[in-house]
Amino acid sequence: MTEPRMTLRGWTLPQTPTGNAALLPAPPWHYSGEIIALDFTADPDAVAGLVPPGFTPTGDGSCSFVFCDWSSAAEEDQRIKDDPAKGQYKEAYAVVHGEYAGKRAGRVPFIWVDSDLSLVRGLIQGFPKKLGEIHMTRPVELGHGGSHKAPGERFRAHVSAMGRRLIDVRVTIDEDRPKTYPKGVAAPLVHTRLWPRIGSDEPAVLELSRGTIEGFQVGTVWHGAASMEVGSSEHEEVELLAPTAVGDGWVLSMAFSVTGGTVEPLAATS
Amino acid sequence: MTEPRMTLRGWTLPQTPTGNAALLPAPPWHYSGEIIALDFTADPDAVAGLVPPGFTPTGDGSCSFVFCDWSSAAEEDQRIKDDPAKGQYKEAYAVVHGEYAGKRAGRVPFIWVDSDLSLVRGLIQGFPKKLGEIHMTRPVELGHGGSHKAPGERFRAHVSAMGRRLIDVRVTIDEDRPKTYPKGVAAPLVHTRLWPRIGSDEPAVLELSRGTIEGFQVGTVWHGAASMEVGSSEHEEVELLAPTAVGDGWVLSMAFSVTGGTVEPLAATS
Amino acid sequence: MTEPRMTLRGWTLPQTPTGNAALLPAPPWHYSGEIIALDFTADPDAVAGLVPPGFTPTGDGSCSFVFCDWSSAAEEDQRIKDDPAKGQYKEAYAVVHGEYAGKRAGRVPFIWVDSDLSLVRGLIQGFPKKLGEIHMTRPVELGHGGSHKAPGERFRAHVSAMGRRLIDVRVTIDEDRPKTYPKGVAAPLVHTRLWPRIGSDEPAVLELSRGTIEGFQVGTVWHGAASMEVGSSEHEEVELLAPTAVGDGWVLSMAFSVTGGTVEPLAATS
Amino acid sequence: MTEPRMTLRGWTLPQTPTGNAALLPAPPWHYSGEIIALDFTADPDAVAGLVPPGFTPTGDGSCSFVFCDWSSAAEEDQRIKDDPAKGQYKEAYAVVHGEYAGKRAGRVPFIWVDSDLSLVRGLIQGFPKKLGEIHMTRPVELGHGGSHKAPGERFRAHVSAMGRRLIDVRVTIDEDRPKTYPKGVAAPLVHTRLWPRIGSDEPAVLELSRGTIEGFQVGTVWHGAASMEVGSSEHEEVELLAPTAVGDGWVLSMAFSVTGGTVEPLAATS
Repeated sequence: MTEPRMTLRGWTLPQTPTGNAALLPAPPWHYSGEIIALDFTADPDAVAGLVPPGFTPTGDGSCSFVFCDWSSAAEEDQRIKDDPAKGQYKEAYAVVHGEYAGKRAGRVPFIWVDSDLSLVRGLIQGFPKKLGEIHMTRPVELGHGGSHKAPGERFRAHVSAMGRRLIDVRVTIDEDRPKTYPKGVAAPLVHTRLWPRIGSDEPAVLELSRGTIEGFQVGTVWHGAASMEVGSSEHEEVELLAPTAVGDGWVLSMAFSVTGGTVEPLAATS
Repeated sequence: MTEPRMTLRGWTLPQTPTGNAALLPAPPWHYSGEIIALDFTADPDAVAGLVPPGFTPTGDGSCSFVFCDWSSAAEEDQRIKDDPAKGQYKEAYAVVHGEYAGKRAGRVPFIWVDSDLSLVRGLIQGFPKKLGEIHMTRPVELGHGGSHKAPGERFRAHVSAMGRRLIDVRVTIDEDRPKTYPKGVAAPLVHTRLWPRIGSDEPAVLELSRGTIEGFQVGTVWHGAASMEVGSSEHEEVELLAPTAVGDGWVLSMAFSVTGGTVEPLAATS
Repeated sequence: MTEPRMTLRGWTLPQTPTGNAALLPAPPWHYSGEIIALDFTADPDAVAGLVPPGFTPTGDGSCSFVFCDWSSAAEEDQRIKDDPAKGQYKEAYAVVHGEYAGKRAGRVPFIWVDSDLSLVRGLIQGFPKKLGEIHMTRPVELGHGGSHKAPGERFRAHVSAMGRRLIDVRVTIDEDRPKTYPKGVAAPLVHTRLWPRIGSDEPAVLELSRGTIEGFQVGTVWHGAASMEVGSSEHEEVELLAPTAVGDGWVLSMAFSVTGGTVEPLAATS
Repeated sequence: MTEPRMTLRGWTLPQTPTGNAALLPAPPWHYSGEIIALDFTADPDAVAGLVPPGFTPTGDGSCSFVFCDWSSAAEEDQRIKDDPAKGQYKEAYAVVHGEYAGKRAGRVPFIWVDSDLSLVRGLIQGFPKKLGEIHMTRPVELGHGGSHKAPGERFRAHVSAMGRRLIDVRVTIDEDRPKTYPKGVAAPLVHTRLWPRIGSDEPAVLELSRGTIEGFQVGTVWHGAASMEVGSSEHEEVELLAPTAVGDGWVLSMAFSVTGGTVEPLAATS
């Protein structure tokens, strides 16, 4: 005799009959954030070691480091936008600049976030996320307690993990830059989706992938001189990103949606 | 013979020869913040039990609950504004409305913050601070990841301590209110400075006090319907604030400076 | 011409030429922990809704809830044992008791941990992990500051997530129980490994799995009366585990190794 | 007519009619903990700059650094022992060794803890506490997941604040040392109780003080070679403790009670 049984539902674990306990739903996902970023160059050989076959770095070690204070939402789960404990988080990541499939592209070798939603949502996309403690100067509208988005004002962002400061960035705003898209946030990213399998030498998932981005917009882009400190941790390899030169710094608002993703062909290496 | 010795310096502990390790310097302190607040009434007897002699509650149990995302700075220590890990923090507090010395005043019976700087700076002023975990909807400028400061948008803020949700507030913006100062943030506060002495039944410090506030300003004040959930914890008495009615909700930017403080006469109770 | 390129290494992301930045290596993994647990029954229909096809609950809603203060190590990465920030973490999980493939088995419908290493290591195995804030009475050896492992002593453990208390457990030790293996920790677990694929309705990975456990041992097992409080959160469904009866409580040390894992056949549902 | 009014109660803020919301009650307080410590010497001039008038350092820069995983209780408030979220915390502190009033004494120039109860309880006593993130190897009883209290086993402890690693200590156990009291934990401490007053150049409280300790006991004392790393932070002056030599390391259980305290005469400086 057939015993009726409820189906387990949920795009991610945990699964239940309703699916309401799952950590997150499928895209579309919406993002609105405040950004502090800078461009820099690192040792070209070190940078070349951090990208997958098929991705060609620019050759001069061109990178960006980006901090984001995100508000995020999911089309299929109103609870994420409604609860700031669930939908809001901070993120810090490096971008290596180069080309993939003949077009300008970026690669994120390292990234830290401060929520489980973002950690797992990132790993599913191929972002190599770990947890970190991230602090960013929050622009203020009034008074003298913080920095305004205005010339002469100083912004700072840093990320630590396991109690070790990894990256510390400072930007002093010089001017606004109409119609500018800083390359640190504008490069289409190529990720490696990797999910190991226990009891096998072969991963369960190993593929290059890209997110499908829609509705990308930036607000007023503020620009200025920047500096960068790279720390050290026995659990990380951020020394690979030690700057050989530091370029422009950026402070801006940004928004976009991730509506899906694609699996990319793994280019031959010869 | 007199042995030369360096003097220990620091407005607070720890003290060193330079004073550079002290947790914080004396005022002036500057504050810039984003506020989510609501007005409510609680049981008038419960409210009357939370105020000191000399402070007369309004009689109808009138209170506000205020969440603040603060950026703070200190005139004498540039490091506080320069490091978001040091100067930025979140705060959640109740205000009882009433009169003191014949003028409108507020009393903060409960307050939680998420940094040591703010905890100790508050205790020195007489704010009864404990640590808590605070989340607030951060207004966004672009896109669909979060809530904008605009009619129809929903804001939420909640505070938990020791893993127990204490207060959870929701506001849906209806309109802006030019030139409005929500009473939750506009009431001059009367505090009890209390510092115990070990080995004595008498405290080392016990006095009523007020901060000297300068440069108070608010930005556009957004207004709307609000709701409030009051939780429970064996370490708190927030049930005393269970709402009998919930009034207006508010979303705004605010700034001011604390330039000093005064000790107030303890009014007779008869 | 073939361009030599370094291979990206790492059992998990992030991958680098050395593999040293990966969040964790493959098994074997070793675990040593302090446990506070209790047995309880919940609504049998609710419990039946939380298990996968092929797993038959006991029918009386028999469950356990287990808190663990873990020290963990990995054979291939000495850094995990050497750094308490990396290898140590706390865990809280429910176990549904039943049968799978004709043998006694357990199913973990909900689990929270407080480190990224444990979160991702768990998801790879099929544990439905989220982050939570976990506190457990740590047994003391001397003095009156805490509870000793001895008759009459009280232990407590609780887990919260997003600032909401989910489960709160109390155990008062009555006696030790030689050669007892509490069922909450002794049941072989059957997991669902689920990894979604963006841009597809089919998950990238969906399979039942079991860990290969070696060297399982328990220390002196302390036993006593227990109680359990189940909270509520809009992000969880812990109400499904509301106890209809609460049984024995347990306090013990435990250790084992995970040396691998197997994929299990998905039993027919009819 | 006299209006009856409830008295505000509470040894600390917040005060309420019951006193049940206060952060902590008066002593007696009981402590049971696991300790990882080491002895070292720092620059004698730097050390001399960290002690108050009347305290004479040993002259050779003799110091200890101590990490404690505390369980704590208060005679007048059972909730502290009963809730691990309230009574348990970690602590990291330096001790300068010397003499005060003709007897061996210690001075704590820097200390970090990870709970508000401990932060404020410490400040009341004169410990110069700040918040920090502290991790310590937790000794295990079974298996291979962690370190046992046994020869050859490695222990580690570190403290970070504002995302900067401040002190990192490693001890490899060599042997047990019967009837040994490591000087880092055995020195009677002399504190400066300092509580500032806003609106005055004179502090509200400034006095030397000592705790009244009863029931001090240590368990088996494990001993071995140690090493120490001192970091840097713009908010701290831990560089003053840069080791000129590192001595013995210690792993032990410890317990005591604080039953009161005394105010000490401020010795003349000439």
